[in-house]
Amino acid sequence: MNTQAFLQGNPGIETVSERDMANAIRALAMDSVQKANSGHPGMPMGMADVATVLFNRFVKLDPLHPQWPDRDRFVLSAGHGSMLQYALHYLIGYPDMPVEELQRFRQLGAKTAGHPEYGHAQGIETTTGPLGQGIATAVGMAMAERLLRERFGDQIVDHHTYVIAGDGCLQEGISHEAIDLAGHLGLSKLIVFWDNNAISIDGPTSLSTSMDQLARFKAAGFDVQEIDGHDFEAIADSISRARSSNLPSLISCRTIIGKGAPNLQGSEKTHGAPLGDSEIAAARQAIGWPHRPFDVPEAIVETWRNVARRGADERREWCVRVGASSRCDDFKQAVHKQLPEALFDELNAFRRDHVEKATKVATRKASEMVLGVVNSATELTIGGSADLTHSNLTITPGMRDVAPGDFSGRYIHYGIREHAMAAAMNGIALHGGFVPYGGTFLAFADYARGAMRLSALMGQQVIYVMTHDSIGLGEDGPTHQPIEHLAMLRATPGINVFRPADIIETAECWELALKCRDRPSVLVLSRQNLPMLRHAHSDDNRSSRGAYVLRETSEPRAITLLATGSEVEIACTAADILRGQYKIAAAVVSMPSWELFEAQTPAYRRSVLAAAPRIGIEAAARLGWDRWIGEKGAFIGMQGFGASAPAPDLYRHFGITPENIVATARKLIN
Amino acid sequence: MNTQAFLQGNPGIETVSERDMANAIRALAMDSVQKANSGHPGMPMGMADVATVLFNRFVKLDPLHPQWPDRDRFVLSAGHGSMLQYALHYLIGYPDMPVEELQRFRQLGAKTAGHPEYGHAQGIETTTGPLGQGIATAVGMAMAERLLRERFGDQIVDHHTYVIAGDGCLQEGISHEAIDLAGHLGLSKLIVFWDNNAISIDGPTSLSTSMDQLARFKAAGFDVQEIDGHDFEAIADSISRARSSNLPSLISCRTIIGKGAPNLQGSEKTHGAPLGDSEIAAARQAIGWPHRPFDVPEAIVETWRNVARRGADERREWCVRVGASSRCDDFKQAVHKQLPEALFDELNAFRRDHVEKATKVATRKASEMVLGVVNSATELTIGGSADLTHSNLTITPGMRDVAPGDFSGRYIHYGIREHAMAAAMNGIALHGGFVPYGGTFLAFADYARGAMRLSALMGQQVIYVMTHDSIGLGEDGPTHQPIEHLAMLRATPGINVFRPADIIETAECWELALKCRDRPSVLVLSRQNLPMLRHAHSDDNRSSRGAYVLRETSEPRAITLLATGSEVEIACTAADILRGQYKIAAAVVSMPSWELFEAQTPAYRRSVLAAAPRIGIEAAARLGWDRWIGEKGAFIGMQGFGASAPAPDLYRHFGITPENIVATARKLIN
Repeated sequence: MNTQAFLQGNPGIETVSERDMANAIRALAMDSVQKANSGHPGMPMGMADVATVLFNRFVKLDPLHPQWPDRDRFVLSAGHGSMLQYALHYLIGYPDMPVEELQRFRQLGAKTAGHPEYGHAQGIETTTGPLGQGIATAVGMAMAERLLRERFGDQIVDHHTYVIAGDGCLQEGISHEAIDLAGHLGLSKLIVFWDNNAISIDGPTSLSTSMDQLARFKAAGFDVQEIDGHDFEAIADSISRARSSNLPSLISCRTIIGKGAPNLQGSEKTHGAPLGDSEIAAARQAIGWPHRPFDVPEAIVETWRNVARRGADERREWCVRVGASSRCDDFKQAVHKQLPEALFDELNAFRRDHVEKATKVATRKASEMVLGVVNSATELTIGGSADLTHSNLTITPGMRDVAPGDFSGRYIHYGIREHAMAAAMNGIALHGGFVPYGGTFLAFADYARGAMRLSALMGQQVIYVMTHDSIGLGEDGPTHQPIEHLAMLRATPGINVFRPADIIETAECWELALKCRDRPSVLVLSRQNLPMLRHAHSDDNRSSRGAYVLRETSEPRAITLLATGSEVEIACTAADILRGQYKIAAAVVSMPSWELFEAQTPAYRRSVLAAAPRIGIEAAARLGWDRWIGEKGAFIGMQGFGASAPAPDLYRHFGITPENIVATARKLIN
Repeated sequence: MNTQAFLQGNPGIETVSERDMANAIRALAMDSVQKANSGHPGMPMGMADVATVLFNRFVKLDPLHPQWPDRDRFVLSAGHGSMLQYALHYLIGYPDMPVEELQRFRQLGAKTAGHPEYGHAQGIETTTGPLGQGIATAVGMAMAERLLRERFGDQIVDHHTYVIAGDGCLQEGISHEAIDLAGHLGLSKLIVFWDNNAISIDGPTSLSTSMDQLARFKAAGFDVQEIDGHDFEAIADSISRARSSNLPSLISCRTIIGKGAPNLQGSEKTHGAPLGDSEIAAARQAIGWPHRPFDVPEAIVETWRNVARRGADERREWCVRVGASSRCDDFKQAVHKQLPEALFDELNAFRRDHVEKATKVATRKASEMVLGVVNSATELTIGGSADLTHSNLTITPGMRDVAPGDFSGRYIHYGIREHAMAAAMNGIALHGGFVPYGGTFLAFADYARGAMRLSALMGQQVIYVMTHDSIGLGEDGPTHQPIEHLAMLRATPGINVFRPADIIETAECWELALKCRDRPSVLVLSRQNLPMLRHAHSDDNRSSRGAYVLRETSEPRAITLLATGSEVEIACTAADILRGQYKIAAAVVSMPSWELFEAQTPAYRRSVLAAAPRIGIEAAARLGWDRWIGEKGAFIGMQGFGASAPAPDLYRHFGITPENIVATARKLIN
């Protein structure tokens, strides 16, 4: 629908043009940044025209029902331009975005954070700011839409994912991984606007890049267009074409950064600093905006509110369709990611069974077995791996691949793209409909770091299956052997890190990860086989307290061995030797999750840690262990990087052995 | 030179073909992987023909002088194919690579680690294995070559950088950043061979990618070719063309993974597992290789040794040219990265000056001032930033940009590419000739993680200038505010992390970073202004002990405040209040580098930490602090993610204030 046709139905506001609507964004962006004395006016002013056409004519949303599942997703990948989004939200009429919020831009407690923060204001679909995250997360959203559409049909699921990306987003490596994945899967409802203003923070982008972005996106399987980003009809035409393409789309919008600021536009000076009072005054003059700061004429606001009215109509029609659908309940369950209760009963039965069998498998193998139960009990899980499927053991019988043209499957070959996998999983989780999990080697958490941090910051249920979790992976050597990665993950707020010691703890940790809906979980799993360590089954999930006494002593404890994952077995052997050969009462504490242990009462923690000297044992860096071992404790683990050799040789070489634990314990006691 | 012409000069070995030479690689790769019962035969067998032509006809090296500065650099980016490199080294005759090393492939202490490890064997130019690192590091090497050539002329510096990259390397995001940079700078002596075998670990690459790689590299500014990777003359022709191109080159080599193994070739089964005895026997039959395991006929070895002979001749001629050059001494100094002693005298004078002036600046600003001194005193430093030059303050007066066609400058606009920046700096450091430093925000260490870890693993002097180091950056909000990053870096072996508290410590830490030639340093710097905290100048570098008592008490200590960076000022204020208002003898310890403090004697550490209760204060995650504060200590810092607001508001909001320290101290004492 073009503006003219649209306005014909609204005779009271026929004088409002899209130029006026765009200038409202410009003015609000200038004013908010100036008031905050901090922020990025250049991008909102440059992309105001594109955003106006996009929202005015195309975007489907209902600000009164911001969680409407079939809304279009809008992702401001160039998150520093947050005032573009906040201005839009105010103008369209999100109830939680009154003008006062714009006036509190970048202030403590405001919804209008420096970069769009998921959960701060309604309608912010994802946290952006670290460049490239938005576009990669959007790929996950578009995947989720496509997968959900396959399951529920286009009467219930049929929306677009729109992205505004900047030069930074396209320079970051993650963009390559994301567009390759999107192009491969042919995610035709993904439409990316590139704010092609040829300016980055240091100056002209020609300082650092000569990339032909159109050719690059074309090579990835995108439909590509280039337009004047200040030509309203060209913008509209390009969006229409993109929407009708059966490929994902890139629209290169040639824009002028800071457009409207007569003396500064086109310069990096508008990128990340207030324009200043005099330039703002000049800009008001230049764009014909005589209104006071934060003042938008009623007619313009009213025109913007038509976006909401149109969306509300569309939502009402959608509600009728969903209500009439036989799949209505299933759809709701999917959207709310409600896992069936029976799943947890089955996991309990699984544990009981394997305690009896004393199953000895690598925890990655245990994870595969658990996943077999999970994926049979629910259709909500979407698995995948960054090209390590048969190492991570993330696929289970009957799972079919997601492939170009076939979205009925539920296993995603993310390719050798850890970062895009993590970001896409964020997008899938944010979109709703699925609980995503994905695998790689723990060492390659490095490559996924940027997106894993956002899983935590946004509190999304994304489950990372990180196998080959120590020198225990053996011959691949130090580049593949994680050392600092547990510390890195444990130091990150809002992540549950699980390092189970055997098949039973693996099942318990998976259960916790599935039940923990408001944060990501990282399952840290061994390549090598590990014996089952429990003496008896308990319905109780012992891992849920984070740490517990696995082997108590009959006499008062002389020493406590604290360990995680594959080192718990070693600690148990050491405890047996200490008791058997030296009559030293050694307890063993398994600590699958530091975060959960930290959340227990001090009394519980004291009862587990107890007063005897403590030795921490983990084939990883020491950092963090002093919290548990105390000043008089000892640590047995890695002092530096690993090496290439068979795993048993490495454990001996680095002294992570029962013998070394025994010797250290005896020294500590004496 | 083609084989025929080449062989005419060697009448004794005219029966040896390049096919024989390549089959030697195949056989050694099969046999070594089988003996190790672990490894990746598919890639060496698939790329044996390309590698043979490359080394036999083109590569310039002298195994007896593996550090020859003008040797060609060869980077096996697909590092899992390490047996390709080890077989080549053995065949060409590196003295440290006898056949016994091949027989010890992947065993403890062998030079033949699972992936090529820099420093293990001569001729391994960089550690590879994490995919994409090799190609990005190679871009840094090619940059260093080009920069050094500009300075010393092509009689002294004129070599190629050859890369073998796999599908994984090209899927990883870092490859995008790297090729964009290489294409932009027109690094024509960079030649990348893509082992285009269409197989990755999960199976056919069509499972996860539809990328037109040739079009993609072309978009980045590469000359691109595609050849049959088993056609010797086509390989040679493509290399000749690539060497004469004025663009960096991609040669897509269509190969068969595991070529030679009649039943398994072309399948992912050859990728990462031994072929098995019967398939190896069948392969011997198929390729006509009747020789016993690890046995290569003398004639074939002798033919391979011609590579070394040719290289030795070239090196001798080069030595004559260098010896005759007026720049000989300068060149040696550059290659050995010998910083002038006067630089350190000037840094000492700088410190004396600013102690007297009590200069109050942000430590990022202090770093800029220090860099002014450094960059004036030496030409060896090469600076840059990932598009945050005027935030990181990494450029100093008189520094000119490196630009396409102009390599006389020494400041690199790395673009919005933190990962490629870090990897390129590794490449520059490995190449020699320069000491690289580069800046970004500390939070974006996340994006550079993969390459920063390799800086540490390889022990390279790369200096990271990480500014905006806490919530002190203010309004940009939680995505830009590092929390866990200090823990992540401190947990990583082999990195010196410096978080200076004022201009004096900044100068001291820079001095330490410049003097520390065998590891990377990370300078963690504030956005906000910080007062000078020293009472007097000392020639002694107080930061060199990692932590020291900045404010001692006259009476016995009642409490010790431990802090780093911007929180030292807050600790000092708290100590003043404790002494002034409450008569509590509070000492303040500044801890700019935990690693250096850890390296001191226990007696020194005890003298600094002392017996009184301790409070750790750092606007970051707690993880790691328990080592210093002990079981009875307290920590004041961040419990979760940051927020968007002016910095002073955030410090108050999160309770990182003198008042909170005072209250905590009083509680701790009572």
